[in-house]
Amino acid sequence: MVPVKPSRRDLQALAERSAKALYDPDRASQALGMRITSIAPQRCTVSMTVRADMTNGHAICHGGIIFTLADSAFAFACNSEGEATVAATGSIDFLAAAREGDTLVAAAHERWRGGRSGIYEVTITNQVGATIALFRGRSHRVGNRSSTTQDPS
Amino acid sequence: MVPVKPSRRDLQALAERSAKALYDPDRASQALGMRITSIAPQRCTVSMTVRADMTNGHAICHGGIIFTLADSAFAFACNSEGEATVAATGSIDFLAAAREGDTLVAAAHERWRGGRSGIYEVTITNQVGATIALFRGRSHRVGNRSSTTQDPS
Amino acid sequence: MVPVKPSRRDLQALAERSAKALYDPDRASQALGMRITSIAPQRCTVSMTVRADMTNGHAICHGGIIFTLADSAFAFACNSEGEATVAATGSIDFLAAAREGDTLVAAAHERWRGGRSGIYEVTITNQVGATIALFRGRSHRVGNRSSTTQDPS
Amino acid sequence: MVPVKPSRRDLQALAERSAKALYDPDRASQALGMRITSIAPQRCTVSMTVRADMTNGHAICHGGIIFTLADSAFAFACNSEGEATVAATGSIDFLAAAREGDTLVAAAHERWRGGRSGIYEVTITNQVGATIALFRGRSHRVGNRSSTTQDPS
Repeated sequence: MVPVKPSRRDLQALAERSAKALYDPDRASQALGMRITSIAPQRCTVSMTVRADMTNGHAICHGGIIFTLADSAFAFACNSEGEATVAATGSIDFLAAAREGDTLVAAAHERWRGGRSGIYEVTITNQVGATIALFRGRSHRVGNRSSTTQDPS
Repeated sequence: MVPVKPSRRDLQALAERSAKALYDPDRASQALGMRITSIAPQRCTVSMTVRADMTNGHAICHGGIIFTLADSAFAFACNSEGEATVAATGSIDFLAAAREGDTLVAAAHERWRGGRSGIYEVTITNQVGATIALFRGRSHRVGNRSSTTQDPS
Repeated sequence: MVPVKPSRRDLQALAERSAKALYDPDRASQALGMRITSIAPQRCTVSMTVRADMTNGHAICHGGIIFTLADSAFAFACNSEGEATVAATGSIDFLAAAREGDTLVAAAHERWRGGRSGIYEVTITNQVGATIALFRGRSHRVGNRSSTTQDPS
Repeated sequence: MVPVKPSRRDLQALAERSAKALYDPDRASQALGMRITSIAPQRCTVSMTVRADMTNGHAICHGGIIFTLADSAFAFACNSEGEATVAATGSIDFLAAAREGDTLVAAAHERWRGGRSGIYEVTITNQVGATIALFRGRSHRVGNRSSTTQDPS
């Protein structure tokens, strides 16, 4: 049988199904109140409102929680083709403080792909558009390539 | 008045007071069940047990939560002299998965200090001693140097 | 006297002068055969051909030389306003090998600026457009802000 | 035939042979005047004197050349078991300037190993012991595992 190249519509549907399949059991992202606000092949946007229980001893949002938001957006983006893919590394520059009540948005997109590896960048902004942090992550695919074109129906 | 160099005992007492002062209002670290298990000048160890609500869609501990544990240990270590110090950057290599029920320990120590900047390394291990992740962070002191030798009594 | 906002043309002229002033005494970049192929405010492109004396024991271009190319492009971009600015950190992902005879291009641009710090990204590609490496650097301005609008004539 | 665990002496001899085999054709490290000053399994020290043609437009050693020194030490350390291993990522914090005439030493050691990956740290100091930079790299083994215990005689 001749393999058929998936259409853009197929890929978008796959990205949506993959994000849902990954988000539904993701108790950490849910516990932190994260919402996927957009999803597309190799791209994802996640938002989160900073709660009192996310602040640290300096009374600002804990840097780890900001990293976690970026890491979730990265995860949904790099798993958007339906293959299990995990983070190998992540690095973040903290540029401005976020405070209780701020709504943060993490926008992730793929910068490069080769073999089982990918590089993703995530920009984290607040409700007035200020850049809070910049994240870069390297992904490693652990699942089976063939599942990309798998028809789940 | 001639300044007196603080003794090792003074510095240890300052580290303990500083950690307590930073931990008490740190709602994020507390909400994640983190406990400071040791503190000394420029060093800190923090432990955390992976709960169900810390797992992601791959049924392993969310990488962001592991980063958050490392970042907290880093924060207590780099604030151990009583001056407000924040993270400028952090990078992490994820080396092995952590699972629900695992107890993770993040051990942070200073690698370098110069001016207002410091470099800290954090090793995250699990209950059987396997290395889960390696973290490196750069700190930036925002507070007043003079507070180092401040007597709070 | 009322300060006058520099025009786009002024800023472009300043970027060109600044790049020349930084490149002329830059013996390292010259010894490696680097050429500035474009310069603009906060942006720079530098090219370099991989010579035999840039290869390592695996017979590919030494990763440090690729980093050096990226770092030079970063330097010209972050010094494009005429203020002395140095690199505080740099990180690179090596994605594909470069070989003797390849012509590499490093394209740097600013991602963020705040206070004395900036974040720059550099993409390194070869003569057929393949991505060889991705670099991110954090800059620290050490010079005087006022020099930005200084008229050197 | 029962495999025999190599002795410490065998491993040291293998490290020395591997370093020589990698250094001899490494034209980049040689062109920069690097000398391997110690080698052991998973560890290596490399020294280099900063020449005029290694300085940048700020009249200090080009950060890329410091990275290159660290990267070479990393390479000799991570190839010390005779298997072809390359750098996947590298990150560096520049902490103090190096100047023409300074002799820099890069000391690399393995921090972690798992599967085909390793994490190495490199400390770069000058002739008076000041820390110039801290480097961390992730290695990826591309060669054949069996070659570790291969007797080349």
